[in-house]
Amino acid sequence: MDFIYFIDLLGTMVFAISGAMAANRKGIDVFGATFMGFVTAIGGGSLRDVFLNIRPVWVEDGNYLIAIFVGVTISILFNKRLDSFARTLFLFDAIGIGFFTVVGVQKSLSYESSAIAAVMLGMFSASMGGVIRDTLMNETPLILRKEIYASACLAGAVCYVLLQMTPISENINAFVSASMVFIIRFLSVRYNLSLPSVPMVEKEE
Amino acid sequence: MDFIYFIDLLGTMVFAISGAMAANRKGIDVFGATFMGFVTAIGGGSLRDVFLNIRPVWVEDGNYLIAIFVGVTISILFNKRLDSFARTLFLFDAIGIGFFTVVGVQKSLSYESSAIAAVMLGMFSASMGGVIRDTLMNETPLILRKEIYASACLAGAVCYVLLQMTPISENINAFVSASMVFIIRFLSVRYNLSLPSVPMVEKEE
Amino acid sequence: MDFIYFIDLLGTMVFAISGAMAANRKGIDVFGATFMGFVTAIGGGSLRDVFLNIRPVWVEDGNYLIAIFVGVTISILFNKRLDSFARTLFLFDAIGIGFFTVVGVQKSLSYESSAIAAVMLGMFSASMGGVIRDTLMNETPLILRKEIYASACLAGAVCYVLLQMTPISENINAFVSASMVFIIRFLSVRYNLSLPSVPMVEKEE
Repeated sequence: MDFIYFIDLLGTMVFAISGAMAANRKGIDVFGATFMGFVTAIGGGSLRDVFLNIRPVWVEDGNYLIAIFVGVTISILFNKRLDSFARTLFLFDAIGIGFFTVVGVQKSLSYESSAIAAVMLGMFSASMGGVIRDTLMNETPLILRKEIYASACLAGAVCYVLLQMTPISENINAFVSASMVFIIRFLSVRYNLSLPSVPMVEKEE
Repeated sequence: MDFIYFIDLLGTMVFAISGAMAANRKGIDVFGATFMGFVTAIGGGSLRDVFLNIRPVWVEDGNYLIAIFVGVTISILFNKRLDSFARTLFLFDAIGIGFFTVVGVQKSLSYESSAIAAVMLGMFSASMGGVIRDTLMNETPLILRKEIYASACLAGAVCYVLLQMTPISENINAFVSASMVFIIRFLSVRYNLSLPSVPMVEKEE
Repeated sequence: MDFIYFIDLLGTMVFAISGAMAANRKGIDVFGATFMGFVTAIGGGSLRDVFLNIRPVWVEDGNYLIAIFVGVTISILFNKRLDSFARTLFLFDAIGIGFFTVVGVQKSLSYESSAIAAVMLGMFSASMGGVIRDTLMNETPLILRKEIYASACLAGAVCYVLLQMTPISENINAFVSASMVFIIRFLSVRYNLSLPSVPMVEKEE
């Protein structure tokens, strides 16, 4: 339990770094960077919890906000060197979305969502923070670009829900499903893979 | 009841088609199209339910998500021909927003919102999915362009709340109010009508 | 109590004016202006309440929506002259965000959020309406530009939470904290102050 909690805080911090870095790159002030770190880190999980009609965890547990401030501080202090940490950050992020996906599915199921809604909410948990980040920065969300990100989360969430119907233990299931997200994400970036888009048609208007 | 439920699923599917089509037109991958179909279809109703502090219906009833996947699949399979179905889709959409407006008002009132809040929430139910779709696609939302869309919903919602204070039966009221939305929407597109904007002033800054 | 309620309605109206004015300036129709007035006025408080898992106040108390319609009507009737009222509006807005920040912190604490979450939610209450307004208008949110706005709210929220641990009475605390927001906001615009941004780095990608 303590381990899960620690990973959750770590993942929150990594998301905060990614949000704050996006702001720093655009020359936004330190407050804006903090704000972006915050919404990126809590966006996905909060949306999941709002749809489950429960309170987001950070409203009562201040540690999540502290993790975010640590992440923002790291992004500011090490801003000039963060690009050389880009590979490390990418790995952390890929691990983080795998973890968040599984936690999201588990939490949704434990609050009695349908299995198919749990899949969507698990995917949301891991990817909506980034969507909000990109939308606020006035960019096309990553999720709508030709990169395999949220679809890796979707695959992991489907995997978890399916394995959960088998006698496989919950811990093994969590590990396998989170790993699937990580591996798909890692391979897709490594080999520059992308999903096909639907053949275009002439736009009438 | 079964009829209403069926219409609700059908309307959800139509919204999913419109969201996925918007994505397909921009060459976004199949996952992004699914995502856009999803947020377009559930956005309005979910926002209403979140404000009413209840769970969105799709969290527990998987059929809504299945309706969305069917809608997305249709948009992908028939993408090249969907433009020739544009007129049919427009009619479905106009019927759908009428229906969603009335259902939104009814649900809000049954959860004890004020009458004026029910009007806003009914309008939200029918139009916010499109607002979220356009915002994520980095476009000015339809609701802010010179087209009569959400204002048709607003008119129907006001109509429902007013008629509901008379002895007219709920079913007739629902039919009249939904028809009003449809007719206003249909005529405004047919005759290219729009609301006036407020006379511009010189921008000082 | 009546005084607080009156100020709350007044602040809601001022936010509605600012949202509707933003729409009017872009030549958006009267419905769009009403819509923008609405989301700007209720956005921040609603988000706070959704995270606290309670119903936004306007869902049950119709007076808030009436205040919004009054604000929108003012923005339409006096559109040509509103720019000459710009200074007055700025003062109202600066008072409004101070008030909303304090009310947001108080409400969050009374619903048992952590102190640090109350700070974030107080800041959210006062500033997220504007973020939603700017995002829908397809502009970079004010909060991400080089203006001291939400950071003034943050300072006031921190002030309230700290003073609240001292024997100072709640009313004095509220007055001091709201005044701090107002003064920071006022001085920053008067003397064109801004927070530093993090030094830029070469973008690798």
